[in-house]
Amino acid sequence: MVFCHLSVPKLEGGNLVEEIKRGIAVWSGTIIFGRRIGGGHVTDARTAIRGHPFGGLCCEQKTYDTNESAPWLVNCDERELFTTFGRPNCVTLKWQSKDCSRPFIAPRCFRFQISDHALHLHGGDPTMYERFWRQMGDKTTITIPGWQSMSYLSDTSKICWFLEPEFGTEVVRLHKVVGNAVVEGRYIVVGTGSSQLILAALYALSSPDAAEPISVVSAAPYYSSYPSMADYQKSGLYQWAGDAEKFNKEGPYIELVTSPNNPDGYRRQSMVNRSQGLLIHDLAYYWPQYTPISSPSDHDLTLFTVSKSTGHAGMRIGWALVKDKEVAKKMTKFIELNTIGVSKDSQLRAAKVLKAVSDSCEEEKQKDGESFFKYSYNLMAQRWKQLREVVEAGDMFSLPQFSPAFCNFFGKVTEPQPAFVWLKCEKDVEDCETFLRGHKIITRSGIQFGASPKYVRISLLDTDETFIQLIERLSAIHERE
Amino acid sequence: MVFCHLSVPKLEGGNLVEEIKRGIAVWSGTIIFGRRIGGGHVTDARTAIRGHPFGGLCCEQKTYDTNESAPWLVNCDERELFTTFGRPNCVTLKWQSKDCSRPFIAPRCFRFQISDHALHLHGGDPTMYERFWRQMGDKTTITIPGWQSMSYLSDTSKICWFLEPEFGTEVVRLHKVVGNAVVEGRYIVVGTGSSQLILAALYALSSPDAAEPISVVSAAPYYSSYPSMADYQKSGLYQWAGDAEKFNKEGPYIELVTSPNNPDGYRRQSMVNRSQGLLIHDLAYYWPQYTPISSPSDHDLTLFTVSKSTGHAGMRIGWALVKDKEVAKKMTKFIELNTIGVSKDSQLRAAKVLKAVSDSCEEEKQKDGESFFKYSYNLMAQRWKQLREVVEAGDMFSLPQFSPAFCNFFGKVTEPQPAFVWLKCEKDVEDCETFLRGHKIITRSGIQFGASPKYVRISLLDTDETFIQLIERLSAIHERE
Repeated sequence: MVFCHLSVPKLEGGNLVEEIKRGIAVWSGTIIFGRRIGGGHVTDARTAIRGHPFGGLCCEQKTYDTNESAPWLVNCDERELFTTFGRPNCVTLKWQSKDCSRPFIAPRCFRFQISDHALHLHGGDPTMYERFWRQMGDKTTITIPGWQSMSYLSDTSKICWFLEPEFGTEVVRLHKVVGNAVVEGRYIVVGTGSSQLILAALYALSSPDAAEPISVVSAAPYYSSYPSMADYQKSGLYQWAGDAEKFNKEGPYIELVTSPNNPDGYRRQSMVNRSQGLLIHDLAYYWPQYTPISSPSDHDLTLFTVSKSTGHAGMRIGWALVKDKEVAKKMTKFIELNTIGVSKDSQLRAAKVLKAVSDSCEEEKQKDGESFFKYSYNLMAQRWKQLREVVEAGDMFSLPQFSPAFCNFFGKVTEPQPAFVWLKCEKDVEDCETFLRGHKIITRSGIQFGASPKYVRISLLDTDETFIQLIERLSAIHERE
Repeated sequence: MVFCHLSVPKLEGGNLVEEIKRGIAVWSGTIIFGRRIGGGHVTDARTAIRGHPFGGLCCEQKTYDTNESAPWLVNCDERELFTTFGRPNCVTLKWQSKDCSRPFIAPRCFRFQISDHALHLHGGDPTMYERFWRQMGDKTTITIPGWQSMSYLSDTSKICWFLEPEFGTEVVRLHKVVGNAVVEGRYIVVGTGSSQLILAALYALSSPDAAEPISVVSAAPYYSSYPSMADYQKSGLYQWAGDAEKFNKEGPYIELVTSPNNPDGYRRQSMVNRSQGLLIHDLAYYWPQYTPISSPSDHDLTLFTVSKSTGHAGMRIGWALVKDKEVAKKMTKFIELNTIGVSKDSQLRAAKVLKAVSDSCEEEKQKDGESFFKYSYNLMAQRWKQLREVVEAGDMFSLPQFSPAFCNFFGKVTEPQPAFVWLKCEKDVEDCETFLRGHKIITRSGIQFGASPKYVRISLLDTDETFIQLIERLSAIHERE
């Protein structure tokens, strides 16, 4: 299957998008390639266009979302079309008026382009979730008048004086609904994403009076930003000390425990396990779409973030659950000195999003609807299935294997399906990142995670369009190699 | 003049607020104290209730804003009322139906309370501006659907890849409208408030390879957070080195130049003025309501923030204008490691607010309306006038004296009227902060600004209610001392 882009700006002979927007036209659901109109090269566009459920029938009144700015992706299975006619090519498109009074308007001509740009999958932008939130319509729309939330302060009676009470309430509720964290006896500290909270935690757990900086460790492969986050300020409080499994220095240390782990998706526990260890549990991915929720996490200092749970990375909102009052105070102090609090606008918006997630879970139980987690679990399951199929079809790559476990949230056994692929290049490929880059798949090298260059991390949270192209390209590698 | 609080929850015999909310009632504008109804103790509430333009006449249909959660402030000039009747006291209130059909509804009874809580004026929460933004109605209301702005990325073709283009556009426009900064040839770096940008600038201007941390200085009295911001991470890159005027170490240094200065309001230039100095200009208060705009600032690295310009502190949005490309890159890198970008919700909201400010300036020129800056300039002028009157009525305190200058924005000579009062206690008061605390005015001691304890900084950006109480209490000190 080859996917190509319909480039809308090149539309000639009328403006279909405008007509759809004004409610005059509706797609007919069939695309016929222009110069082959008599040759039988008919492809079905229903499943193709950016994964939108496509209004295949006249009068169904399902219109293409004209807010989409990306070019439309079309299934043009006939690969030779391009070799025959060259590219960019031209297609005609049958469409109909919405009221069926003009059943077949004259064909339109589009410019055609095989998508051969590089796929950027080295980051972890969670754009995959956008479709769910579009389907939710106005439920999570927030309106903020210009005079609202002007003050620095939120609730000065709380340790974290910039925590918006609504956000705190929804954090507690969501953890109770999902069952992934103990919230009783915890202080909530809100942060500008969990990055800021990691730094706040390092600050809070280290001592200004110590003779030397406290060692910060994490077991390899570890989150690639940990070393630079710990060291970029050249802090005298803490210092990156590498792979937790190789750490053998005496005295106090801070261990970052990421579970499920970024990049490889495995569940983790502390690796050093000595008496003077201070632990930060980064549970950004401990949500039902990624891993079975076996029990509520119950640690001293646990971090979560909306970017990975609901996909709202642009909000920059994370939260910490902190057992010790003094640690919560120091983390708050850090954020005060760093950014004098956390955007109220984003906290209010995050509260609304978390509420919608909790609501969707409760409604699912009552009405057998689809909760956010069921939706995203199914999407991840589908992606992992397609990915395993394409990887197993050849011998170029291998994937981590996970054990299924009982998930208390779904009430059944589920399989881990991480947000990232920890892909290993087999055979004689030593530098997997460079190899994939040659095939226009941009990934993050294993070296950056303290591991071998035979590994790369690939984001699985991108759009359907990008994911399909990833599968397409991995498949093409097998064909060529 | 004594101001007292009407405590709404104690309202008996009906709910006036509800009736106003439902449009049934309107204030008559007169309050008569209950037990003295025959005694002539009538006070006019028109100017008193939280400074709202009070709908004094029936059928004017100006209703009290029932969204206000604070207790209502009432001018109860008869101080002896409280000594006579004790407190809390009871008042009756005359009010009328909106359509004048019920001209005098039976009096209601409120509980009364003299406001004797401590006035917290040690921070700089800019709540003063809230009224303006309320008056703007829906002009700056923002609506964000749940699926919008989900990505980490804004414009990856820009150095500052997380800068929302709309926000960048409005920053440039506002500086052109106000004339307070050269924007040509500058990179814009957005930050989570200007605090984050100060840290980003220290990071960008220091060198990881230097033999020792670079010295960070600022002339006393300096912003009280500079020392802890520079030192709280015990960074090996930079280090607080105190008062710029006393700095005599050889080699490179970073000087923070705050102009107008926080706390004292004076215009400033670099004090060290040596060849190896790297300057950060913190121009948070270089706006027409605070100081004459004599020329567009034109420095290497200049910081601004919405919290002081428009009053939206809760947004946590600031921006830097940066001449050098490499410095802009390093600042962006800092923010990436610190918080992976800046809340998009707040950037979009800030864009709308800055646009409204620019629009108000342009509309004022055309229609002789009131721009945001004219409004806030007048409010500051009024406050400084009242403040100078009360200070000059006694010999306990003194204030800085400023020279008027031509303001290009207003097209006339204006006087500096800083956001903070840099108050000096005269006579034998050595510790001004403790002295004022004894009179329930909480301020920030001069010591924290690297100055004498005879000085304190007092915020002038609080609500009308708090400001009036400040004047009231300063006046009472004169009477007592």
